[in-house]
Amino acid sequence: MKLYEYEAFPNPKRVRMFLAEKGVEIERVQIDVPAGEHRSDTFRARNPEMTVPCLELDDGSHIGGCVAISRYIEEAYAGPKLFGETAAEQGHICAWQRRVEAGLMDAVAHYFHHATPGLGALENYQNADWGQHRGRQAISTLEAMNDRLANKEYLAGDKFSIADITAFAGVGFGLWCDLFSLEAFPNVASWFARVEARPSAAA
Amino acid sequence: MKLYEYEAFPNPKRVRMFLAEKGVEIERVQIDVPAGEHRSDTFRARNPEMTVPCLELDDGSHIGGCVAISRYIEEAYAGPKLFGETAAEQGHICAWQRRVEAGLMDAVAHYFHHATPGLGALENYQNADWGQHRGRQAISTLEAMNDRLANKEYLAGDKFSIADITAFAGVGFGLWCDLFSLEAFPNVASWFARVEARPSAAA
Repeated sequence: MKLYEYEAFPNPKRVRMFLAEKGVEIERVQIDVPAGEHRSDTFRARNPEMTVPCLELDDGSHIGGCVAISRYIEEAYAGPKLFGETAAEQGHICAWQRRVEAGLMDAVAHYFHHATPGLGALENYQNADWGQHRGRQAISTLEAMNDRLANKEYLAGDKFSIADITAFAGVGFGLWCDLFSLEAFPNVASWFARVEARPSAAA
Repeated sequence: MKLYEYEAFPNPKRVRMFLAEKGVEIERVQIDVPAGEHRSDTFRARNPEMTVPCLELDDGSHIGGCVAISRYIEEAYAGPKLFGETAAEQGHICAWQRRVEAGLMDAVAHYFHHATPGLGALENYQNADWGQHRGRQAISTLEAMNDRLANKEYLAGDKFSIADITAFAGVGFGLWCDLFSLEAFPNVASWFARVEARPSAAA
């Protein structure tokens, strides 16, 4: 089993954190995204979506995307259940995972790729107005997270879950590209510090 | 347990199909989205994202979003495993589910909401160029589906899964708003007919 990734990017970090939380180590292969290696014929044969991370299974098949890779790891290995245990836990975690993926992680990514120079020559299509719109949506998701975290330790309840990993990567990405600071979101700031203190955050 | 939905829309249909495939019946309550009922204080208290479908559990908590609701149903009831059984199956199904959700269902929705009049006065923000871009992405996802379905019965392999439900709703939505026809995608057309023949497609 091999994980194709590009270490400096936020999505691969989500999978490394997930692996670290589960206590699973797998071989990692760097794909030089800034040099366009993800668009090579070799990589496209592995993942037609041409994105990292992408997991190669021992049967030669590939799974692309952070949540799908994490789901495979969740089912194939023991360790904490980061997608939840009971039906209700799994439903609530899945809802928060999607909310912070669509409303924060992907929203920040759209801001970065559309409202800033993004990856420069690698950008095939840019729409600055859309990028600004998504930036505002990211901030509105931060507001919802701040309300939620007023009386919860973690986003989906009292247990750390994949929703926290996705949101942690999204907040980190938004801070990195100066879309927001956490001053106006004190509950998010203390949650962020709690997650950052976990050994997996350094993965 | 109650499902808040608006019957005429494609996302609630995904959940009704999922329930029918599992053989689960639950009370359904219509929210008049065209009249703006999803933005009322009452509904916002149930689902701050103000979207249907939304599932109310017996403990009074709510789960919003098609995949999260489906995940809850998958875990709470017996019946076919529409998210897959083995780790590899679950990973591949999750990857295809996300691919057709982001690249087809959501892409068609963006085309509809941004590049056409959409829901008219209910649209808070429109960006026609983004809508056209997403329309092209939907068609490119159809091409990928057409390749995939050349030698597979269903998107994630030989078993019907949640990925097929999402894609079926996405194709139906795209046909409905005249974004594409299936003439150029014969494998998608025969898969669509296979899915349409299932009793759950009438749910």
